[in-house]
Amino acid sequence: MNSIQATIITIGDELLIGQVIDTNSAYIAQALNKIGVSVKTRIAVGDNKNDIIKAINNASINSNIVILTGGLGPTADDITKPLLNEYFGGEMVIHQPTLDHITNIFVNRHKRPMIERNRKQAEVPSVCEVLFNETGTAPGMLFRKDDVLYFSLPGVPHEMRFLTDNHVIPTITKTFVSNPIIHRTLLTAGIGESFLAEMISEFENNLPTHIKLAYLPNFGMVRLRLTATGTDENTLKTSIEQEFVKLKNAVAEFLVTDKDENMEVVVGSLLKEKNQTVATAESCTGGFIGHLLSKHAGSSQFYTGGIISYDNRIKTEFLDVPTQILQTVGAVSQEAVEQMAKAVREKMNTDYAVSVSGIMGPSGQTDEKPLGMVWIGVANREKVVSKVFYLRFDRLRNIEVTANQAINLLRLLIINKI
Amino acid sequence: MNSIQATIITIGDELLIGQVIDTNSAYIAQALNKIGVSVKTRIAVGDNKNDIIKAINNASINSNIVILTGGLGPTADDITKPLLNEYFGGEMVIHQPTLDHITNIFVNRHKRPMIERNRKQAEVPSVCEVLFNETGTAPGMLFRKDDVLYFSLPGVPHEMRFLTDNHVIPTITKTFVSNPIIHRTLLTAGIGESFLAEMISEFENNLPTHIKLAYLPNFGMVRLRLTATGTDENTLKTSIEQEFVKLKNAVAEFLVTDKDENMEVVVGSLLKEKNQTVATAESCTGGFIGHLLSKHAGSSQFYTGGIISYDNRIKTEFLDVPTQILQTVGAVSQEAVEQMAKAVREKMNTDYAVSVSGIMGPSGQTDEKPLGMVWIGVANREKVVSKVFYLRFDRLRNIEVTANQAINLLRLLIINKI
Repeated sequence: MNSIQATIITIGDELLIGQVIDTNSAYIAQALNKIGVSVKTRIAVGDNKNDIIKAINNASINSNIVILTGGLGPTADDITKPLLNEYFGGEMVIHQPTLDHITNIFVNRHKRPMIERNRKQAEVPSVCEVLFNETGTAPGMLFRKDDVLYFSLPGVPHEMRFLTDNHVIPTITKTFVSNPIIHRTLLTAGIGESFLAEMISEFENNLPTHIKLAYLPNFGMVRLRLTATGTDENTLKTSIEQEFVKLKNAVAEFLVTDKDENMEVVVGSLLKEKNQTVATAESCTGGFIGHLLSKHAGSSQFYTGGIISYDNRIKTEFLDVPTQILQTVGAVSQEAVEQMAKAVREKMNTDYAVSVSGIMGPSGQTDEKPLGMVWIGVANREKVVSKVFYLRFDRLRNIEVTANQAINLLRLLIINKI
Repeated sequence: MNSIQATIITIGDELLIGQVIDTNSAYIAQALNKIGVSVKTRIAVGDNKNDIIKAINNASINSNIVILTGGLGPTADDITKPLLNEYFGGEMVIHQPTLDHITNIFVNRHKRPMIERNRKQAEVPSVCEVLFNETGTAPGMLFRKDDVLYFSLPGVPHEMRFLTDNHVIPTITKTFVSNPIIHRTLLTAGIGESFLAEMISEFENNLPTHIKLAYLPNFGMVRLRLTATGTDENTLKTSIEQEFVKLKNAVAEFLVTDKDENMEVVVGSLLKEKNQTVATAESCTGGFIGHLLSKHAGSSQFYTGGIISYDNRIKTEFLDVPTQILQTVGAVSQEAVEQMAKAVREKMNTDYAVSVSGIMGPSGQTDEKPLGMVWIGVANREKVVSKVFYLRFDRLRNIEVTANQAINLLRLLIINKI
């Protein structure tokens, strides 16, 4: 059959006034994509009945699947449930398993009596199939009309994720047989987007028409993604694999990983493989490198800990950076980061260490040291290596790019490339 | 005149397959909202000519302003510029100031010769007004047709932000006189959304029709937002201020701040006011609390530094947690976090300290200690206070909620509420 199309509708004024960032759509799109459903459009509308109905009407013209998130909470600005009840022509009824579940959450977990508002969350339109929400108080709902599936999910991210994984995706795979879409992604570091494009222009020009190349720059690195679409999954797999090998060879010098994973995951895997450990000494990133190294499950196998030496006093007292260095070349210097990396590695007795010191902005620059100047140091048991970067983003972005570049420098040390 | 409506169109396959999260729309929406322009719809489409044109056509029916982001890079998947050239009927011409600017970036900053691909970035449709992009190589563009303004901006976040602030917003305020929209937002902590709703239900029921209330739960806290719309700005200001005062009184017990700011900003302001400092001792959050405290400009005034004691060995060696505690009650215990807070405050000689130790998942639980169990400790020069939390999210969310709850506990200690 033809390719299965989906529309994602996110509901909430907070999305239109920019108060929250929509991470739900990305999660749902990824999950749909994996099973070969392509998302044609993502649309965000406010807590407004007419706008929501218009979006549903439009979506139902072009889509086999419509997924709504948001507006299912217990408060008066949450209008999705009564609206869908009216739209699909049902009446509100209590869903007993959900009521039992909510009662249980309040009585046993919160140790608080349940109020009418909570009880109302167990009401659902009589014409829907309830998607039982183990992770929260708002049930998901599924409506079927004219061969289109309409899913309504809560906007709370972890509840939306649970319902997507456990109800939405299984229901779709049971209902539709869709055309395969296959992606292969790799990550490069150390080369800009336009130079990379030049380097692989011949490869790109010779790509078969059913395979598309995309450039995804982020954190000073560029991800390359091949996407193959067609009808026969095996043929697609063979052809995308051939092209992916060519692409990997073309960018070999700058290749970080041939999987769709982040820099810190690559470094974590390298360390776990070798059964080695790393410590951090952070000034300008204030703990963000530690966060990246420890945010994924299993990181306690390789991440020992770190010193956040935000104040110069901490650099001296905890990392033995001589005050003389701070007074002459300053905290943002090769001398300072090399000492920081060396000291934290020795004191925490790890195989590797990484250190940073820089000027993240919006102020703090001097005549010699511009905004965005950052020194990064990495150490192993034999040596200390450092490198200076000049970044030109805003404060938060500078922090993120610095952390990623630092972890990349650590990677280069681990694989003996520096 | 009537209210000014805008549509935001984000372009890129990566948005539809969920590979990147769209932060640009939120930024633009916020900026538009501040000047009284309401965003009716946000829509994301792929790198597909027909879909982009359809989105522009649809947007132009209902909107006075259409803002497109993405698809302006130097690579072949970037199709926005030629498409707009065709759509508005122009021809591609070199924009000399942009060419000079790009040449300067490559020759002076990157110390690399420029290639044809880079030169092409200085080409623009003859029918557009160029929005000069000081922050990157892709110029922004403005097209005017039938009283609608069409802005095209690069998708790189800091470039998009620069162009929004310096070109888009000034052009819109010059072109339109729009109806005022006024928001007032406050942050509560320590009470769930449904109980909060119960507490202020009378307030909510008595709100005048031109003022709307929204609940925005996040990180275990709830933000409340009032939105007033109308025609006369002074009347609106007076009436929203009256309602906001009532709302603040109604939630006084749980009020964190009456500004639209994050928990860590509130705590930073409290510390700066008193000229006091804080240090961190983090286990399960791995540096994320340090990151929150240091990510905003001016944080060096109050954030001294911290120890990331991810491995238990670091808790003993750097924070003097007795091995006997680790062996009996364990690292996730009141005893451990109280010692961690006490030690880091003394060693870094700060006024306050905050410490955390917990089980973030997806594994690591025991019979006595469930997944999501986390102890938080805070200390000042007189005392140490600790509290246990039971979270029920995924690993990353548990880290974020823990960090926010820890900073809230620090806030309560600073204002003598614990």
